[in-house]
Order: sequence, then C-alpha cells, then structure tokens
Amino acid sequence: MLYSLRMRSAQGGAHEAGGRHISGAERIVSYDKVEEMTNRMLERAFSHTRGQADFINIIVEKIDKESVKYVPLLSVATLESSNVSASHSAAKSMLIKAGVSLLAAQCGISALENLTDSMGGAMLFCAVSGRRLDTVMEKGVRVSRMDIEEEEEYGDLLEKLAVHNVHVREALVLASKVAAAPGVVAELCWSDDPEYTTGYVASSTGYMRIPHCKELGSSIGGRVFFVKPDTELTHLQEYLKCQPVLVRLRKEL
Amino acid sequence: MLYSLRMRSAQGGAHEAGGRHISGAERIVSYDKVEEMTNRMLERAFSHTRGQADFINIIVEKIDKESVKYVPLLSVATLESSNVSASHSAAKSMLIKAGVSLLAAQCGISALENLTDSMGGAMLFCAVSGRRLDTVMEKGVRVSRMDIEEEEEYGDLLEKLAVHNVHVREALVLASKVAAAPGVVAELCWSDDPEYTTGYVASSTGYMRIPHCKELGSSIGGRVFFVKPDTELTHLQEYLKCQPVLVRLRKEL
Repeated sequence: MLYSLRMRSAQGGAHEAGGRHISGAERIVSYDKVEEMTNRMLERAFSHTRGQADFINIIVEKIDKESVKYVPLLSVATLESSNVSASHSAAKSMLIKAGVSLLAAQCGISALENLTDSMGGAMLFCAVSGRRLDTVMEKGVRVSRMDIEEEEEYGDLLEKLAVHNVHVREALVLASKVAAAPGVVAELCWSDDPEYTTGYVASSTGYMRIPHCKELGSSIGGRVFFVKPDTELTHLQEYLKCQPVLVRLRKEL
Repeated sequence: MLYSLRMRSAQGGAHEAGGRHISGAERIVSYDKVEEMTNRMLERAFSHTRGQADFINIIVEKIDKESVKYVPLLSVATLESSNVSASHSAAKSMLIKAGVSLLAAQCGISALENLTDSMGGAMLFCAVSGRRLDTVMEKGVRVSRMDIEEEEEYGDLLEKLAVHNVHVREALVLASKVAAAPGVVAELCWSDDPEYTTGYVASSTGYMRIPHCKELGSSIGGRVFFVKPDTELTHLQEYLKCQPVLVRLRKEL
C-alpha cells in the first residue's frame, strides 16, 4: 500500500486566512516511510529560506497501487547564460521550440516577472493566445500526488549529472508529471527560494535548466503551464491535483 | 512559543469527501515537541480501535502565549453502575443536578442513543427546551486548541486517581475547556471506542465518570453540550474551536 503525503506551509496564518505561502512538498511512500517523511516535511516548513512557517498542513492519504500512473523522467540539460535578460530570451526560444507561440511565451515570462509574491500553485496559459485560463488567481493550480519511483537511483542519477539539489530533485518530478499531462505543451518555472536563481523550461522532449532566471535575493517565483487551446481544463486540473503519478527512471539515461 | 497540533483521521477518504471519522487529537506543545507529538498522532490514527485511517490531516499552528486562556481542571469522581439503563438514569440525574431540564436531559441521552455513527464533533442542545441548536448535523461542533498545562503532573494525578487511560486523559482536558465555555451548563459524553464503555457528565462542578454508558463492542459514541437558551452560538463555537486553552491543575487536588 502507498501513501500520498502533501504538505503546505504559510506565514501569518493559514493560506485560506490570508497567510503567505512558504513551502510545499509532495511524496508518495510506503507505510513504513510515512513518519520519517512527515518529520522531514515539518523540518522543511520550519527552516525554509523564505521564512519560518507558522502554519503547516500535512495530509497523509492511502492510495491504491492500481490507481498510480507511471510517467517517464524527463532528460535534463543545462543552458549557459550570464544574466537575467539573456536567460529570459533563452527561455522564450525554448518555449517556442516546444510549440508555444511567441506571444504566449512573452505573456508567460512577463506574468512571472510581474508577480508581487510567490504562488503555491501554477498559472495556466493558453499556448497560442497567451491568455490566462485558470481562475484561481494568486493561489494557482497545485500539482499534487507525485514522487519518483526509485529514490536511491534517482539520487545517484542527479549526482552523476551534477544537479543534485532539493530544487532539481522536486522540480524534475513535478515537471515530468506536468509534461505528461493532457494538453500541456510546455512549462516555465523559476523558484521562490531567494538563494536559487536557476529556472527551467520543460516539455515532453526534456527539462532544460536556465541559470539566472531572476536576481539573487528575490523570493518571488512561480510556474506557468502552457496548454493547447482546446484543453479540457477540469480534466487537466483533476490530473494535476489528484492523479497519483510515479515518475520512472529511464534506464538508458 | 507554543504550537497547536490538530489531527483528524477518517476511513474511506477525507471527512469532506464522505469518509467515516476515525479519530481526532489535540495538543498544545512547545516547538521542540512538535515532531514527537506529530508522530504520536500518526501512530494513533493508524492504530485506532475503530479502524485504520486512510486519510489523516495534521495541522501545526503557532499560537501566541498571550492568547492562551487558562481554565481549571475539573475534579474527577466515578459513579457505580452495573448496566446501561441504570447508567443513563444516573446520567439524567447528574444533568438535572447541573441545571439541565428533565426534557433536555432526555433529549440529549436519546440523541446519543440514536446515533447511527460517531461524530467528529459535539451536538449543542438547549438546556431548557432540549432542541438541537447547532446546524452542522453529522459533523458536529469540534472542540479544538486545548491541552493540559503540566503533562507530567497530570499523568501522576490520573495515576493516583486510578483513571490513567488515554480516554480520561483527553476527555478531561476537553471537558474542562467546555465547562468553562460561555453559556455551557453541562456535557454528556460516551466514547466511540468499542472497547471503552465508560461515559461522563461534566459541568463546572466536576467530571463524573459513569460506567456502562453503552454496550461493549459498540463503536458509536458522541458528545452533547447543553447550553443556556440565550447563549450567543457564534461566540460559543468560536471559543470551542479557536480559543487556545491550557488546563491548569489545581494544586489542592
């Protein structure tokens, strides 16, 4: 039996009471790991670079093994770039290559640049018109119920690729789930960790890390998912939030 | 700094998705105890006599020491009784002695007898008319954010009184908070633990344990709070749910 663990933390009260989002975490683990992972989530919420949480919500939920969908881990590469402007240009090119229109790519980058605080979830943008499609505004669409299938081998792989940090570890799993989502063309993200400025563009063809997506010290980050115009939004959001996904390593990597 | 820990668990999905309530727990602890208490709550949810939970929600929330209200621990006594019918008669007498009308006492006992499953929270009844006042139906009014002030001395006291079990430990803290609530006249409770049949009537004058409030093996239990007719319900429910309360041992006990 597997358990989905979901944590969200905030400062200044619960999210729903106007608190500021601090951190979130997602795991899918076996019964014997529930306690250890819960403790790790607590430690994380209490020691995030964005501040110490004063509200933490942890949900532990049993999931049937049969309901789990397996998706492949995206391949990882890192672009070279030396400043924010060049990085945003590179991100734009990557998005266009993945099938996003120039206009939509510009809208997505601009939406992240203009955030006034981080969001717990992602913004959904039409990959053609660049219009925002979700209606959850500052909350965003949460991606939930996912993890890597083989934790140890995953750690070894990230180590080998010299990208072994908590950001890549989590974002790559999330991006792999998102890239396999019905209707998703590409994802653009940079972190809200003020000490971590590397962002990425991901699509089913891979996960491209882009350094200097924001200035060091900025604690504002977020995610944009670009989706095909005819996407069934309810179906997509249900997949992102509720479908348990284990990300499977490709042995040839 | 203090932290309120609240756990609720259910079987067959989350409470809000129609799951069956399994267990709940409330603690107020210092920062260094958060992890340990969270683990205890998980263990409890996974090993309750009512069944193993498949949904567990734990909330950790910082509370200001200044916002804590201190209420006295109720004194404890145990009645003798040999069967359910005699126990319910005794409960009725105790409720009337505390200021509840005969009619309301009968309505409250009957409401608990006629539950088809346990409730996460309590029912509010008018102490005069016996009408149910809250509108949360099968969910009930949750009593939250309370604990004993001095855990070790409390354990010693319960040991000395020969009532040291998890049911008394928790119920006496809850009943002490409830008895100090604005408008509450008395409380009637028996547990939903199929292995624990002792119930109680509590009011500001004390906590009277009554054996055999239900048949052994019944996993249905609940709480009724009898309140004065002119009670401001919003204010009362706010106190029960949100006011952090530490229950203080009376040194003369």
